[in-house]
Amino acid sequence: MPEISSKGQLMPPSPIRKLVPYAEEAKKRGTHVIHLNIGQPDIKTPKLALDAIRNHNIEVLAYSRTEGSDAYREKLASYYAKHDIEVTAEDIIVTTGGSEALAFTMGTILDEGDEIIIPEPFYANYNGFATANGVKVVPIVSSIDNNFALPPISEFEKTITSKTKAILICNPGNPTGYLYNQEEINQLVHLVKKYDLFLIADEVYREFTYDNKQHHSILSQKGIENNAIIVDSVSKRYSMCGARIGCIVSKNQRVIQTAMKFAQARLSPPTLAQIAGEAALDTPQSYFDEVIAEYVSRRNVLVTELQKIENIKIAKPSGAFYCVVELPVQNSDEFAQWLLEHYSLNGETVMVAPAAGFYATVGLGANQIRIAYVLKKEQLVRAVAILKEGLAKYLSI
Amino acid sequence: MPEISSKGQLMPPSPIRKLVPYAEEAKKRGTHVIHLNIGQPDIKTPKLALDAIRNHNIEVLAYSRTEGSDAYREKLASYYAKHDIEVTAEDIIVTTGGSEALAFTMGTILDEGDEIIIPEPFYANYNGFATANGVKVVPIVSSIDNNFALPPISEFEKTITSKTKAILICNPGNPTGYLYNQEEINQLVHLVKKYDLFLIADEVYREFTYDNKQHHSILSQKGIENNAIIVDSVSKRYSMCGARIGCIVSKNQRVIQTAMKFAQARLSPPTLAQIAGEAALDTPQSYFDEVIAEYVSRRNVLVTELQKIENIKIAKPSGAFYCVVELPVQNSDEFAQWLLEHYSLNGETVMVAPAAGFYATVGLGANQIRIAYVLKKEQLVRAVAILKEGLAKYLSI
Ligand SMILES: Cc1ncc(COP(=O)(O)O)c(C=O)c1O
Ligand SMILES: Cc1ncc(COP(=O)(O)O)c(C=O)c1O
Repeated sequence: MPEISSKGQLMPPSPIRKLVPYAEEAKKRGTHVIHLNIGQPDIKTPKLALDAIRNHNIEVLAYSRTEGSDAYREKLASYYAKHDIEVTAEDIIVTTGGSEALAFTMGTILDEGDEIIIPEPFYANYNGFATANGVKVVPIVSSIDNNFALPPISEFEKTITSKTKAILICNPGNPTGYLYNQEEINQLVHLVKKYDLFLIADEVYREFTYDNKQHHSILSQKGIENNAIIVDSVSKRYSMCGARIGCIVSKNQRVIQTAMKFAQARLSPPTLAQIAGEAALDTPQSYFDEVIAEYVSRRNVLVTELQKIENIKIAKPSGAFYCVVELPVQNSDEFAQWLLEHYSLNGETVMVAPAAGFYATVGLGANQIRIAYVLKKEQLVRAVAILKEGLAKYLSI
Repeated sequence: MPEISSKGQLMPPSPIRKLVPYAEEAKKRGTHVIHLNIGQPDIKTPKLALDAIRNHNIEVLAYSRTEGSDAYREKLASYYAKHDIEVTAEDIIVTTGGSEALAFTMGTILDEGDEIIIPEPFYANYNGFATANGVKVVPIVSSIDNNFALPPISEFEKTITSKTKAILICNPGNPTGYLYNQEEINQLVHLVKKYDLFLIADEVYREFTYDNKQHHSILSQKGIENNAIIVDSVSKRYSMCGARIGCIVSKNQRVIQTAMKFAQARLSPPTLAQIAGEAALDTPQSYFDEVIAEYVSRRNVLVTELQKIENIKIAKPSGAFYCVVELPVQNSDEFAQWLLEHYSLNGETVMVAPAAGFYATVGLGANQIRIAYVLKKEQLVRAVAILKEGLAKYLSI
């Protein structure tokens, strides 16, 4: 039998993959599983986006332009202008989700053996795209004690080598929920200018900022026009994850031209979903106001309930819809499995994402979990009660 | 300014990219450009596929399963059974177009520096996916003189090294239109067994076979269950290129499990398009009968008209909807540009795809072009007349 590639063998499995069979078993036993582990919002997709698809009168569902339709990219440029990001349609390539934007960005700027610095914990799939490109992820640990704020810049400087090509941040963060302030962004701007590095910002949660805090896009910063690359997506913004529409945005025309060659190989992003994405840009501010108010009140409920659990640490999120919690356990992987395999409260249990998968440094995050608050408040309350009682039981055995 | 990757620099641009500005200029001058260069059919998408999308009642456009929805994969398995391909849903991963199936397949089985043998001329984007993976394409030249039949197996054997991991064929072929017969497939089966290689078949044009010739899928062959990987797509089958739905099919579970890790990194294929793809599987045979009859009569018209041109060679296609033609010119790139830049007949000119981009061997195909017969017959007649007159003029200057 011919061998698969060593790259394929190295590809990391999804951090919750091991737990999936246990969740399925639990369901088979009749236990209801509350999923705190997924980033799939329950929020309704704006009706105007879905209507655009219902009302289309396409007869031949043709390829779109490789870089995305002109109409959509022009409208995207106006969207960015409203967010203090001055770009034109030429600076944008529409991609199949933020995922493809990440893949193209890595291919465009990183060769096999090159290094990319990422504060950890980080979105686990960065590992997958890095492995697929033979790129080395150099993590810099951020701490739950300050809600995963940017680590000191000196830590970044220590790890920079001749192989270092880029720094990747996620702002606001998955899994941290941390929103970088202007001072932190300034430090990164200074750093990438000093060492002539690319700065990639995954800003797919841009709108989801709380407590009157502002989002600071790297493309609103002066002097790093040739360094800055944004990875973006409609998935969470309009709760349309299944559309698979995202984009790469950069003022660096070499980057755009090169990413275009990767894009040409795959011909075009999804045509129907682009129609939905274009329509979604007309979503009124009131939709976001409501959604943000909902996430804030969920976050508040979640944090209030979690605070009733003893000996845990909570990173209070100021953006996105994730919350990392440190538990008084040795191994949150085992605890998560135990919750599914051996525990239930009134016929229910919870599935959480063990945080180790969000760290590149082996051993880190072993006592942490990520909770996504994309569920109704009543469910969150029940879920945390299960976590509390389950934890007490787990610690007693 | 930070440097882009050397891989990015090596990524081949699309073979017709250089011509695009000339086509745009021609249109600006008021010249009508007949596009013989594109693989975007003008055939209508089956109404039931488009209706499935119009009539959906989705409220949250969520991610689908990473491997594609169960319902769609089960139905795909039945589709394959009808085509003498015995597979189950577990052997299938739904991808974002055949393009992503190609990308995942290469990542799954090939490491940087590995070699993949491909008869040339071949679908130009194989080069892009190979370059993105640092993989070396080893071409084996096939000849227009026998319509691009499989080159002698001894030619394959000569090029096999310790780095050779796979053979990739496209059946029926783009750009050749050639359909491999059972004897040719047998030879390939024997070869990959002998050297324990993967055999990848891009069968996206499976249905489009003419003159009562049969398509022979590599997954219908015995004894290469662990070697065979199919790349497939709904793009051409149902004229729904913009859906971006394809799949990888293999009985080799290592391949499927590894490809799944690449798939997990990008979360999910497009959800709406899967709904359309699933509905499309109910397309009645009459649709295909009509479409195939249309392509056959277009091919016949095209070949008949082309035969009126002196000193050219035509590879008569028995499948797909492309035709390679050898012209009495030195450089078909220049001729194609000249047609756009300096020629018109009754206010019209044609855009053809120079064939050099379909060859990996430098210099080959320089006097060939590819014509896609995805246009109405009247247009094809006019297009060939322009080609004929244009060629005469070009040769006279
Ligand atoms: C931080 C971050 N980036 C990128 C993505 C990719 O999402 P998509 O490909 O759906 O745009 C996700 C999805 O969860 C994410 O959380
Ligand atoms: C031979 C071949 N393979 C694969 C593809 C990829 O098509 P898609 O990604 O639309 O499925 C094409 C498109 O033209 C093709 O001609």
